[in-house]
Amino acid sequence: MPFPSELLSSLRLAPGAVDLNRLDPRDSLGYDGDKGSAEEALAGLGVRLADAQERLFAHRGDAAAPRVLLVLQGMDTSGKGGVIEKAVGLVNPQGVRITSFKAPTAEELEHDFLWRVRKAVPEPGYLGVFDRSHYEDVLIGRVRGLADAEEIERRYAAIADFEGELAASGVRIVKCMLHISAETQKERLLARLDDPAKHWKFNPADIDERALWAEYRSAYQVALERTSTATAPWYVVPSDRKWLRNLAVAQLLLEALESFELEWPPADFDPVEQRRRLLEEDPIS
Amino acid sequence: MPFPSELLSSLRLAPGAVDLNRLDPRDSLGYDGDKGSAEEALAGLGVRLADAQERLFAHRGDAAAPRVLLVLQGMDTSGKGGVIEKAVGLVNPQGVRITSFKAPTAEELEHDFLWRVRKAVPEPGYLGVFDRSHYEDVLIGRVRGLADAEEIERRYAAIADFEGELAASGVRIVKCMLHISAETQKERLLARLDDPAKHWKFNPADIDERALWAEYRSAYQVALERTSTATAPWYVVPSDRKWLRNLAVAQLLLEALESFELEWPPADFDPVEQRRRLLEEDPIS
Repeated sequence: MPFPSELLSSLRLAPGAVDLNRLDPRDSLGYDGDKGSAEEALAGLGVRLADAQERLFAHRGDAAAPRVLLVLQGMDTSGKGGVIEKAVGLVNPQGVRITSFKAPTAEELEHDFLWRVRKAVPEPGYLGVFDRSHYEDVLIGRVRGLADAEEIERRYAAIADFEGELAASGVRIVKCMLHISAETQKERLLARLDDPAKHWKFNPADIDERALWAEYRSAYQVALERTSTATAPWYVVPSDRKWLRNLAVAQLLLEALESFELEWPPADFDPVEQRRRLLEEDPIS
Repeated sequence: MPFPSELLSSLRLAPGAVDLNRLDPRDSLGYDGDKGSAEEALAGLGVRLADAQERLFAHRGDAAAPRVLLVLQGMDTSGKGGVIEKAVGLVNPQGVRITSFKAPTAEELEHDFLWRVRKAVPEPGYLGVFDRSHYEDVLIGRVRGLADAEEIERRYAAIADFEGELAASGVRIVKCMLHISAETQKERLLARLDDPAKHWKFNPADIDERALWAEYRSAYQVALERTSTATAPWYVVPSDRKWLRNLAVAQLLLEALESFELEWPPADFDPVEQRRRLLEEDPIS
């Protein structure tokens, strides 16, 4: 069962106040399929995604080619890695540039918070994915007081400027906040604790951050309000159900890729002449 | 129908003389399935590949974690991009680092030929893929005389040293020469010319390089002879049939990943204690 793309428009945050408590992490977005039909739909989307991404990649030699930047944010266990595996994984990895942002290194801390981010912006023709991003600098940065209030304040505007700049240079930015409930996070953390094959994904510090759930929620709300712009909107993706989350992000990605309405690049050679060279002058026939 | 992994050992070049003319680009490697069964087998391998790659990725925080480097070389149309899409594309792209080596930039030319290559070596826990590689510096480098004979000569030894160094530091190197016939290349170039959706993959210079088929073959032979070592062997993969090529490379990749016999990383925390924290002290239950 396909995912009616018009339903996704409801995920797009309008500029203005945001109340995450009113957005349901289990919202079905009007999709009345189940897990099985969603996985089938995702496989179907995969074919279109792969085609759209190949068209983008075909333009990679052109400095004016568009690009897509998928920004993934969300609390621990919200599924940033899962989205990369299941949705981004549907396209040819050759054209994908994934950057996972960890705690900044000493060198990164010596620079403005956007320094490392600018270096990770995908080149023309590429699909870039940020697994966490510059938003950490106004999320954990704010919650943990890693910068003073004035600096945090400055960052919202700096982010909006930066993203505006990117958009003006042909980067289509898709920002997804993977929205889960505290209850779902607890279940997923417990599942990680109960399975030795998932211990590597668990960090006791995750529980420390969880204790600040309300503070993170406020920090997200402010960040979403201050940075959801016409050119770089935020989408709040209900993520308590993984299959709905994957399908929704894949659909958003597809819309971004198809929005360019890219034709295949025109040949800068004469195919007839090249055929003749190959057939009539072939030195090794 | 699974691909009997023991058949692949025949692809591994023994140190010593190499005669590519005696290696059949349509060799079936003893595999008696057809395209359909090979694609099924590839999907089956995908499950194991994804698991093995996730185990590797789980160790990425450990500086001593192993890594895999898949080096893809071959004439135009031999399928380097196809292998990345169909075989490498089976694992989570999050743990993959793909580098496409183009003609060196002015900056790269100011350094030793291995300078840019060293920067692209995957970090511990990652699967690196080179789409072309430092071998171009002894292939087109030799055929087109981009460096003098003495320098080319020096490079074989430098490559062997470099790869030996990588192997000693935990990089499992899998070098695949995608072996196609001149006839197959002609068919594939014509197919690119005949389909506007493939024009972007065609470059008239491809025909110029094709005219030097014999010279490239010699250059490959010397390179394979001089650099197929016990720790960084070359595999000559029959690539006239795409499905056999993809299956063979996927199997080689799987063997490399499984060779580490990686367990899931042990927890550096007490799961029981963390469960208790989460269940009994949860501030937001």
